[in-house]
Formats: sequence, structure tokens, C-alpha cells
Amino acid sequence: MYKKEIRILGIDDSPFRKFTKGNVLIIGTIFRGGILLDGVLTTKVAIDGSNSTKKLIEMVNKSKFKPQLRCIMLNGIALGGFNVIDIGELNKKTKIPVIVVIRKYPDFKKIEETLKRINKHSKYSLIQKAGPVEKAGEIYIQTKGISIEKAKQILRLTCTRSLIPEPIRVAHLIAGGVVTGESRGKA
Amino acid sequence: MYKKEIRILGIDDSPFRKFTKGNVLIIGTIFRGGILLDGVLTTKVAIDGSNSTKKLIEMVNKSKFKPQLRCIMLNGIALGGFNVIDIGELNKKTKIPVIVVIRKYPDFKKIEETLKRINKHSKYSLIQKAGPVEKAGEIYIQTKGISIEKAKQILRLTCTRSLIPEPIRVAHLIAGGVVTGESRGKA
Repeated sequence: MYKKEIRILGIDDSPFRKFTKGNVLIIGTIFRGGILLDGVLTTKVAIDGSNSTKKLIEMVNKSKFKPQLRCIMLNGIALGGFNVIDIGELNKKTKIPVIVVIRKYPDFKKIEETLKRINKHSKYSLIQKAGPVEKAGEIYIQTKGISIEKAKQILRLTCTRSLIPEPIRVAHLIAGGVVTGESRGKA
Repeated sequence: MYKKEIRILGIDDSPFRKFTKGNVLIIGTIFRGGILLDGVLTTKVAIDGSNSTKKLIEMVNKSKFKPQLRCIMLNGIALGGFNVIDIGELNKKTKIPVIVVIRKYPDFKKIEETLKRINKHSKYSLIQKAGPVEKAGEIYIQTKGISIEKAKQILRLTCTRSLIPEPIRVAHLIAGGVVTGESRGKA
């Protein structure tokens, strides 16, 4: 069993205009369980680029919060459009379990077609490598370095205010507020 | 008595290099009581400038959260160095009570001397106009549009995690994380 105040990093990207060039701001929230925000980390990744894994590993490994972190939670498998995260690599290089939180079951066929159309089909292998999408209550998850049962325990501790774990919900609000002046919508 | 889930806006500025020119990012957190972050607002003010009152009024008045807001909390009377806030004007133009939260009793003599030295003595009248600094538990407050007793009630509802009300503590963490890559220290 995890302690109620387990430290978790929740990550989300900020709004951006699709298919433009440039970087998108990434927000990481350090939470104690599902209640207390302890810190905020940030980095940037290239829109539709391929540096998100490297950038997240850097952000985590240089953080003063790293020794306490028990889990990294991602809002989907990609940041800044199609900057797909290699969650196996993220887990391996940080030695921290990774949970990808997914609101709706992904339409893999459509994702594959889109990646083909925009000439980025090679990214599809990263999505396949991320492993099976499992149902966890009302949402879905993919995991690395942690069992499904333990991941579900962490979700129960952190989904205190909505279907989405609090670290991701708050990262989403911050990202929206900082980039657009006022947060809107849900993670 | 206020409801436990009273909506509050907590405001803090981000780190900047003293006596440089430019803008500093301002973070506003919309909280329900002392627990739940509901939204994030942002604006920018000029370092050592005089536009903070106008910028905060704009940020509040255009927010979708405004109809629910019962209180604006400021971390000190100025943003971005000596961009002093006219809290009477902020209260008048938003019609929302204002509480200035102050960690240590201000050294008014030193503030006046500094403002004189940097040729900004006229700002001192705004600080004087803000009214008496009152003790509230371990911290100090100045208020507009609200009684000291009601302000203390709001502090009791929002100081859930530290001496500083949660809306300001979290605004401080966000501001630091976004601007420097990792939040540090206390509000």
C-alpha cells in the first residue's frame, strides 16, 4: 500500500496552434497524494517534434523533488501534438514508474492513419511499445515499471476531485492559464 | 459566516532581476476555500512601473470566475518590485474585497527611504492610503471593502497548509516554476 502523501509528478502541455512550428510549454506539478501542491516544474518541447522523452528525463532528473517521487503521470502518450513520449525510456532513465492517463479509449487506427498522412508513421512504434491500454475505473491507463494493481491504488489516492488525477488536472489548469491568460476546460 | 468553498483569487508575481526593465509574469489562482484549485489567471506588469492596479482590474473583470469571487488576496502591496497596487481602486473597480497578506510587519521607514533614493517617493502615498497594517494570527494584513473580522474568517478558511493562505502559496509556486523551471521557497 502507498502512503496517502505519496509524491507524484503530473505532466501536461499547454494549448498551441496545431501544425505550427515552435515550442510548447510543459507543466509538471509535484503533489502529495491528491491534495497538496508541493512544487511546479517546467520545460519546453517542440510541437510535433521528437524531443519530449529527453526533455522530460532532464526535467525530472535535475529536480530537487526527484528523491521523493514515486510516480510520473502523463496526460496521454504525447506532448505538443505528436511529440510522442517513449515511456519505457522515461521509466528506465528516471527509475520512476510511469502511468499514462487516457480519458477515452484511443482510436489506434485513426492515430496510425494520421501519422501516415503527415509522414510520421515511425512514431507509431513508440505508441505500440507503450503497451496495452487498460481500463481503470472510468478512465484508461498505460503503465511502465508498475503493476496495474499498484497504478490503480495511486489513481484512487489522487482522483480526489474529478475522474482525472489531481496532479494532471492542476498541471492542465496552470498550462492553460499561463499561456492563454485564463484556464478553461478539463484535463 | 463564509461558506467553506468560498471562491478566492490569490495573486503573486514571479521572480525577476531587480532594477532591470521589462515585464514580470503575474499568477492568479482561483481557489474554492483552502483546498481546491479551480482556475488560473495570468497577466504581466512592468518591473518598478505603475500599471499593476490597472492590469489586475482588467484581469479580474474579464475573468469568467468573477461573478463567484468573494475576495482578492495579494502577497504584499506591490508586484514586480515597486509597482505598488492601489488597493482602494482595485476594490472599487472590481467591487470585490481585497486582503493584502504580509509575512513580516513592514519597515515603513526603510521603504520610504528606498523610494526616495530611487526617485519614486510619490508611490509612498499609495502605501499610506492602503490603511493600517493589522495583526492576524502569525501574519499581518491590510484590507479594503471588508472588515478585519471577516478577513480573519477568510484566513482561517484558507491557511490550510501553512501560515500563508493557500491561494497565495500556490500562486507563488506556479510563478516560480514557470519562470525558473522549478519552484523554490515560500510565498
